[in-house]
Amino acid sequence: MTTKGPTRTATVTTPVDREIHIERTFDAPRERVWRAMTDPKLLAEWWGRGNKLTIECLEVERGGHWRFVEHSPHGVHGFEGRFREVTPPERLVMTFEWDGMPGHVAINSMTLIDLGGGKTKLVTTSQFQTQEERDGMLKSGMETGMSQSYSALDKVLASL
Amino acid sequence: MTTKGPTRTATVTTPVDREIHIERTFDAPRERVWRAMTDPKLLAEWWGRGNKLTIECLEVERGGHWRFVEHSPHGVHGFEGRFREVTPPERLVMTFEWDGMPGHVAINSMTLIDLGGGKTKLVTTSQFQTQEERDGMLKSGMETGMSQSYSALDKVLASL
Repeated sequence: MTTKGPTRTATVTTPVDREIHIERTFDAPRERVWRAMTDPKLLAEWWGRGNKLTIECLEVERGGHWRFVEHSPHGVHGFEGRFREVTPPERLVMTFEWDGMPGHVAINSMTLIDLGGGKTKLVTTSQFQTQEERDGMLKSGMETGMSQSYSALDKVLASL
Repeated sequence: MTTKGPTRTATVTTPVDREIHIERTFDAPRERVWRAMTDPKLLAEWWGRGNKLTIECLEVERGGHWRFVEHSPHGVHGFEGRFREVTPPERLVMTFEWDGMPGHVAINSMTLIDLGGGKTKLVTTSQFQTQEERDGMLKSGMETGMSQSYSALDKVLASL
């Protein structure tokens, strides 16, 4: 379900057995969303959903690595991966791995669609190695965490 | 097909559409094969098939990273990944990624079976993200390269 304004929500579907498909619209032009997703200083302001985020590495280029460490009240969580495709300002494909399940790698393909009128739709497809890993991610509270991140991103975009 | 002695070959099959299954027997006890697969000094002697191999990183533990750079007459090739499971002396599960196709990750599960009488069978299952990636690996000359590596490993094992 998609609503307007500050209560915008993401649409999460699972059309293929190893995938999660997410759509979310942002009230900002595509270049601005791209910047907020690739500039380490801006990324640190929203990705951690209010938790302190350390960007240890962010090489936004094909083959480049990324690694973020989130300091939450429940502990320290590292995430990392590598960029498979970088096409500014419209497409990023990267691997995604949480330190808690090392070697379990998802492929996140993110496409920014310019809707015109200062709006941008982010379409994300996450492909997992197995259906079990996909279902584990769905049960992990991913949707809540993602909603918090995207709300924080809304604020960053509005401030730019 | 498996033959004895110095002309031992690996059996390569593709029982599942995203997997390559490989079996190879070595004339050495399991602990020795494990050592040759996890000691950076020994690994550097066989993994590169005669080419110089730089072990930039090899953290043999769950969550640990590895990265090797092979200096071949055709160029410099980096490979890297992360350990998902480490159970000495019988099982290693790790991700595998070649710099030439960043973000395309295979999961290599390697099991060492003690056959007794100083022989060990290595069973490797490589699971790819897609069937296309699996087929690309099969067409890349993987089987020849692997045979060269395993022949070099035979020599390292005989020398220990």
